[in-house]
Amino acid sequence: MIDLIAMGQAARQAAPMAARAADAVRCQVLAVIADELLAQQAVLLAANQKDVGDARAAGLSEALVDRLTLTPARLAGMAADVRALTELPDPLGARFDERTLPNGLRIWRQRVPLGVLGVIYESRPNVTIDVAALAVRTGNIAILRGGKETLASNRALVAVVKQALASAGLPAAVVQFIDDPDRRYVSELLRLHQYVDLIIPRGGNTLHQFCRENASIPVITGGIGICHLYVDASADLARALPVISNAKVQRPSVCNALDTVLAHQAVAAEILPRIVAHLGAQGVTFRAEPRALAALGGEAAPASVCPAGPEDFDTEWLSLVLGLKVVDGLDEALAHIAAHSTAHSDGILTQAAEAAERFVAEVDSAAVYVNASTRFTDGAQLGLGAEVAVSTQRLHARGPMGLTELTTYKWVVFGDYAVRD
Amino acid sequence: MIDLIAMGQAARQAAPMAARAADAVRCQVLAVIADELLAQQAVLLAANQKDVGDARAAGLSEALVDRLTLTPARLAGMAADVRALTELPDPLGARFDERTLPNGLRIWRQRVPLGVLGVIYESRPNVTIDVAALAVRTGNIAILRGGKETLASNRALVAVVKQALASAGLPAAVVQFIDDPDRRYVSELLRLHQYVDLIIPRGGNTLHQFCRENASIPVITGGIGICHLYVDASADLARALPVISNAKVQRPSVCNALDTVLAHQAVAAEILPRIVAHLGAQGVTFRAEPRALAALGGEAAPASVCPAGPEDFDTEWLSLVLGLKVVDGLDEALAHIAAHSTAHSDGILTQAAEAAERFVAEVDSAAVYVNASTRFTDGAQLGLGAEVAVSTQRLHARGPMGLTELTTYKWVVFGDYAVRD
Repeated sequence: MIDLIAMGQAARQAAPMAARAADAVRCQVLAVIADELLAQQAVLLAANQKDVGDARAAGLSEALVDRLTLTPARLAGMAADVRALTELPDPLGARFDERTLPNGLRIWRQRVPLGVLGVIYESRPNVTIDVAALAVRTGNIAILRGGKETLASNRALVAVVKQALASAGLPAAVVQFIDDPDRRYVSELLRLHQYVDLIIPRGGNTLHQFCRENASIPVITGGIGICHLYVDASADLARALPVISNAKVQRPSVCNALDTVLAHQAVAAEILPRIVAHLGAQGVTFRAEPRALAALGGEAAPASVCPAGPEDFDTEWLSLVLGLKVVDGLDEALAHIAAHSTAHSDGILTQAAEAAERFVAEVDSAAVYVNASTRFTDGAQLGLGAEVAVSTQRLHARGPMGLTELTTYKWVVFGDYAVRD
Repeated sequence: MIDLIAMGQAARQAAPMAARAADAVRCQVLAVIADELLAQQAVLLAANQKDVGDARAAGLSEALVDRLTLTPARLAGMAADVRALTELPDPLGARFDERTLPNGLRIWRQRVPLGVLGVIYESRPNVTIDVAALAVRTGNIAILRGGKETLASNRALVAVVKQALASAGLPAAVVQFIDDPDRRYVSELLRLHQYVDLIIPRGGNTLHQFCRENASIPVITGGIGICHLYVDASADLARALPVISNAKVQRPSVCNALDTVLAHQAVAAEILPRIVAHLGAQGVTFRAEPRALAALGGEAAPASVCPAGPEDFDTEWLSLVLGLKVVDGLDEALAHIAAHSTAHSDGILTQAAEAAERFVAEVDSAAVYVNASTRFTDGAQLGLGAEVAVSTQRLHARGPMGLTELTTYKWVVFGDYAVRD
């Protein structure tokens, strides 16, 4: 029996201490976490082995088992990521919009932590450490709810975090873990608006939807990407091909991977067969709408090509499948993207400045690309250093959310015994 | 029978047109609204007279009737406010965080409209124009749901807005009005996450709570202020008195009005009687905790003073009532504020730089004041030019929300056929 209200109260009580902790103290917590992930490797791997054994016994797929498995190399990677967070600039305290008003008031906005984050995720034990470290670095409080398949691993990892908090003199309540996989605690957490400021789901579409529909707290939804590249008539086709390949093949299971190529009719007959040849050799299969199919030889198209079904252009493939469509030009490409994109990452390949400009102006996605792979939609790739989520909702933050996106601000006003007229 | 889904679809369809309309076009809409509020004064006042008559017949209090009444002067004020919005800088298009990454990618974030705003308000017809104008100026879409007591007025005002949109060539769906006061449409609007990006309630605590608990869309809650001024031992008491008076008396019915004075024990015996004398003469009554009561002469205190009840320090007075409490010093003041503030507006009156600094660092309210009245928490007062709401939630924006706070951004990435390693 978990008392979520008590957890919320403890979070609120700890929040000022986390918010006011010196940067060096927050970084010290991270350094200890990184050290202990290595020092306590045996304990952590043993706990994880229990989860792995239970998962196998329960008949989970090998892909899922792999996802929840920790290894010495993965622990070392987690430790390195935590340590990297300490090298980023302190996101707190900075002043912005500072000025003196005509009435003499001196005002600015000052960065402060968001407050209490509720993070709901699935069976990836690395998220436990990732979110705990991000929360501590940004002076926030985290209440974690991980998947039931990694309960033993999460307990061991949270023990490391608690030890690190204690060693720096921060309250244990800065990172709290809902130590019961009963799903009712997810629902309860989503209604804890008195204590929780923000819900961050880390997982698939179903989780995001569940959170949005059941939360009385703002939810950062995102991570779902039906991503497009439009090959304009003016594109340098030889150079376009590696970009398309990178966007589709480098890591097909992630949200910023390419789902659909839109080819201008003037270049379709040239680029589409090259895409099919080049990406097909890497294991990609294709869903082609009628004109694309025709450009690929119709019934004589390679075996990797099949006609696109009615849902195919609304599917996030997360695998080596690519939709192909011929468009009359930029207008049709923009219309297709407006109708089918999840507003995550969409790009144009072109040599024409006006086409690029119009694409950038009219495509309203979290990240809009000109002559670049959609795979760059990532906190580290865009120079944020880290990311807690990729937002495709519009409030607060869009695209990769880094340290600054886990802050808010307060207004500070200095007067000389100033009164309002 | 209102089809909210059709309204949502129309909103989404109109959104790109509003977002891409030139600033001059958006300003033209506002100029026409301002002109027509004056030109159509007779029609608007007649419609409003119907509402006023119905309200009187239904036995509404004179305060409520006054709130929904339009007059030539009020229409002129609304027109002036709309026109003032056209003088503010365009909130859209600005680039920020622009830079070139080591891998050659040129990136920036670009301001774009938030999208579709659902605004739910009570019987203040001026909000209809205010929100419509703010939405148009920021390239957003507004779906309005006003109180049932102002239905006729709102219909007439929305007709003016539609006429202005048409005159500038913008779709009528840019500003939509739920033309049926049935409350079920409020609940339906709150679940329209497929089409609506943000809910802004304008009204009392009950409305805010209802929205937060029933929405599947992020809600900007706010507007509830239990505001404090702490009179430090070092404060210039002669100058403190007008600040306290301004914060309490200038407009007691609003959220940034003062609710509680915390007086340092070293100055309580001096400042509290002066507060009671000075503000009492202006009609203020006082709720004093035991030490404050003692400082005011105990049973010999003026008739305007009574002992504070258990809920008094958790009450937003919105009237000429003021809580008084003696604290041992800054620590107790900070603790009281942490326990009782709604994180709206809180201030310190002091000559001591360290006390001011600590107050600013530790009070986590949307607006934190040093030697100034809490009444400055207002978009116009803080130089934003206008405000759509005062947020006391932490996501996206805190305190007064002006034009910029009604925008979000997209990432723009330019490469030279760039691929991710």
